[in-house]
Amino acid sequence: MRGLMQDVPLTVDRLLTHAATWHGDRPIVSRDAEGRVTHSDYARVHADAKRVSNALRRAGVQQGDRIATLGWNGARHLAAWYGIAGIGAICHTLNPRLFLEQIVYIANHAGDRMLLADPACAPIVAELRHQVPSIREVIYLCDRASLPPEDADAIAFDDWIAGEDVEAGWGGFDEHLACGLCYTSGTTGNPKGVLYSHRSNCLHAMMTLQADALALSARDTVLLVVPMYHANAWGVVYSAPAVGAKLVLPGQRMDGQSLQGLIEAEGVTYSAAVPTVWQGLLQYLRDSGKRIDSLGRVTIGGSACPESIIRAFRDEYGVEVTQGWGMTETSPLATVSVPSPAVAALPDDAQMAFRLKQGRLLAGLELKLADDFGNRLPHDGQTPGRLMIKGPTIAAAYYGGEGGEVLDEEGFFDTGDVSTIDAHGYMQITDRAKDVVKSGGEWISSIEIENIATGHPAVALAAVIGVAHPKWDERPILLCQLKDGAAATREDLLAFLEGKIARWWMPDDVLFVDEIPLGPTGKIDKKRIRADLTGYTLPFEVAR
Amino acid sequence: MRGLMQDVPLTVDRLLTHAATWHGDRPIVSRDAEGRVTHSDYARVHADAKRVSNALRRAGVQQGDRIATLGWNGARHLAAWYGIAGIGAICHTLNPRLFLEQIVYIANHAGDRMLLADPACAPIVAELRHQVPSIREVIYLCDRASLPPEDADAIAFDDWIAGEDVEAGWGGFDEHLACGLCYTSGTTGNPKGVLYSHRSNCLHAMMTLQADALALSARDTVLLVVPMYHANAWGVVYSAPAVGAKLVLPGQRMDGQSLQGLIEAEGVTYSAAVPTVWQGLLQYLRDSGKRIDSLGRVTIGGSACPESIIRAFRDEYGVEVTQGWGMTETSPLATVSVPSPAVAALPDDAQMAFRLKQGRLLAGLELKLADDFGNRLPHDGQTPGRLMIKGPTIAAAYYGGEGGEVLDEEGFFDTGDVSTIDAHGYMQITDRAKDVVKSGGEWISSIEIENIATGHPAVALAAVIGVAHPKWDERPILLCQLKDGAAATREDLLAFLEGKIARWWMPDDVLFVDEIPLGPTGKIDKKRIRADLTGYTLPFEVAR
Repeated sequence: MRGLMQDVPLTVDRLLTHAATWHGDRPIVSRDAEGRVTHSDYARVHADAKRVSNALRRAGVQQGDRIATLGWNGARHLAAWYGIAGIGAICHTLNPRLFLEQIVYIANHAGDRMLLADPACAPIVAELRHQVPSIREVIYLCDRASLPPEDADAIAFDDWIAGEDVEAGWGGFDEHLACGLCYTSGTTGNPKGVLYSHRSNCLHAMMTLQADALALSARDTVLLVVPMYHANAWGVVYSAPAVGAKLVLPGQRMDGQSLQGLIEAEGVTYSAAVPTVWQGLLQYLRDSGKRIDSLGRVTIGGSACPESIIRAFRDEYGVEVTQGWGMTETSPLATVSVPSPAVAALPDDAQMAFRLKQGRLLAGLELKLADDFGNRLPHDGQTPGRLMIKGPTIAAAYYGGEGGEVLDEEGFFDTGDVSTIDAHGYMQITDRAKDVVKSGGEWISSIEIENIATGHPAVALAAVIGVAHPKWDERPILLCQLKDGAAATREDLLAFLEGKIARWWMPDDVLFVDEIPLGPTGKIDKKRIRADLTGYTLPFEVAR
Repeated sequence: MRGLMQDVPLTVDRLLTHAATWHGDRPIVSRDAEGRVTHSDYARVHADAKRVSNALRRAGVQQGDRIATLGWNGARHLAAWYGIAGIGAICHTLNPRLFLEQIVYIANHAGDRMLLADPACAPIVAELRHQVPSIREVIYLCDRASLPPEDADAIAFDDWIAGEDVEAGWGGFDEHLACGLCYTSGTTGNPKGVLYSHRSNCLHAMMTLQADALALSARDTVLLVVPMYHANAWGVVYSAPAVGAKLVLPGQRMDGQSLQGLIEAEGVTYSAAVPTVWQGLLQYLRDSGKRIDSLGRVTIGGSACPESIIRAFRDEYGVEVTQGWGMTETSPLATVSVPSPAVAALPDDAQMAFRLKQGRLLAGLELKLADDFGNRLPHDGQTPGRLMIKGPTIAAAYYGGEGGEVLDEEGFFDTGDVSTIDAHGYMQITDRAKDVVKSGGEWISSIEIENIATGHPAVALAAVIGVAHPKWDERPILLCQLKDGAAATREDLLAFLEGKIARWWMPDDVLFVDEIPLGPTGKIDKKRIRADLTGYTLPFEVAR
């Protein structure tokens, strides 16, 4: 027997319409590439989004068409996003920081029909025009005066929508229709596209609005540092309008000075970004003596947050830092390190160990720690396992069938992360599954050894990879990039690690390199390290 | 093109399973009719709920069967609720405070197959056994020692589930399946059943968990005063497990002393109830000098909350009071008086006017103010209109087709309330549509006149109803029930109202009655007043 409740589909257009209706005058502040700050609000962005829909329909765009965006966080980008999704087309966010070849690959793979780009991205646009035949039109997310002079065919967003009506039919379709497309950065194989549905985006927004997640309120002013091309900007592009929070969109400038200026000028109360951004802000605050007094809460994600950042924000600036974990395939937020009742009751120092973990699962999702055979592992905070996740906001497959079947027989998605879960429910990532070193049937965390080695005064950057070993399957070796002018020996490093890690975790070799290769998102490129080490063999058998 | 996200249905069993997995040791505290307090937790209630499912399956219960409960808030009731819903049966909460004839009517209308009842409800159960032939089994929500001795066929819940397995397949069915059934108190016509779906209950839980709604956290201890038979206890039966909040279930005793005792003993941080309950608690606190220091937030709903309660809670006890509005047909929560940014910036006294309103709309819903012809009315805080509501947590029809078509052509449900909406988005109920007095094409709020008249020192209770009038269609008359030993004249009352309401709102007559009739939920029974006044005519034409 079916329930007798209204059959209203969960489509994202309803979120912006809600904001325009009930929070119409809440500001949306944008900064462009030249540093100019412009003010709009939900009512105006909603009207512009409707104009975008009409312009798209006029261009013949249909439900399911992929419309690419290539740009930073700004009000025009936001209007484009909702204008695309409102008519059932798919907003495909391209990451302008990727290598050009990757962007070209991704746009071709997606078959993008149209491109909306920041004028600062004009050099990339020129290449895409030539190398992506499916792109029929390019619109620049700016006014006419800011068009890139080198692009003779340039059309300004403001001109494109100027004559359009502010009425346009939105939504009313199946909530399972695709809404957004975002490719993972692809550290293995080609980039793969995650195809979000209206339903998954709406549910994610609701899940993350909980008091124990991002806890956004109408009274918040949100500085959205995390880019819109990173997995829906952690869903804030949907959750902020849902509650009517004021939005501050910083464009391309994410240096400490720029962010401090926006925080102070706009009275920012909440922000979300990756640790490097916060490190930059902290450095600027210390150097300048400036303050961020309005800021109360910050969510940090993307990679593990150092304790020093959490402490500095809290002790020096009165900002509460929470870690979040997720990935493109998880919409992205899945865990948040908001304290559990038991942890909240601990003394302050004891709480820190939990703040450094990636946190507790949001209601609506399921987690599983599995060994190589799919068996469930205990939540004892010690036993590492492959992290598997299930829920209505989790990917079931990649666009175009790339990567094949990605769910296990219970419907769980393999995150590719190795983690522990403790008795309080806190999950902690210990490694990427492909980077974990498997020695004698046990797992060695490459990340943990790297973190300790980086603490050696001479070391700028450290990387641990597994090397084939006839007896132990794999053994870890440590690569070190020394600081300029610093010196250290193999023995120095091993002595430094001694006693800090288990004896059988000790690297079998230490290699000094001029530069440890980094990928486009700033993470250590272990694929390239492994390729560079082709033919390398372990020097000798280490007693264990 | 469909999105490629996991197809995980929103079924309520996942909420309790989440609580058992991630918050298994969070306590669930129950008080029974004798005042005994027992402690359980989410893991144990989850296990008991699984046992209930197995006991139901053993009894031949199928998906879609209606299983009635008749009782107060307690852990067994909670386990029954989830055990029923987990297998796709429908939990039908009967209200033990209704007149017996109504309960009999409702149980027959629903075709309840089984009844789970508090032992304190044994007299009602005896009648239901005879008058509701569809009920094949009765289980008492207690242990064997607490069984009502007068019922020879009594089976105790604890015995019923004792031998059952703690593994039972749950969920996995269509989220649109019916999950719960709750009848409205039926001030017009027969009671009508609202048939909640798993989807609507899950979405409602997520909507209400927002920071700008109930904002429940794992660190909260929730005293659930609002009964489980009142529209899902405002959804807290689902939202508290979703976040792992500690639950305190007070059973039948809702007097001030009992509640204060539980608040103090269990460290309650949050509670939800109707104004009369809070009035009783306040009175007890003042008389006894006792404190409720752990309590931080309270949501008040069910009827408008007097300013005196809001002020007393805040100023004397440091408790933040928020009003919520909703009805059985809206799951129930739809608006909450959490401050908007503009209102939060007002001086304290100016904020109070907004705290007294029923509040702002939750994201995911749509509101409409309509005149008698369905035209939309302005949100100016002045113009009253019929309040219409739309969304996935709003009823589309009543069980068995009672009441016929209840949605307008845009899919909005008519709440039967008359309200205003102001420029800040705050909705305020001004009357029930059927009680509003329509005079000369304009609406007069019966509630507003009643509220003012009740302020007269001699008046215990006041009621305003409309009486047919040849020229103005209707004119208001005022009925007064005087306090014991007090005296007042028609002229006294009219003089008291003078200047406090518009001149054309002045009642055409004042009648003094021994007792103003109340319905089973304590609201003024205007249907009976109108029946009692059959044949009454207005005394004379009043100049206006």
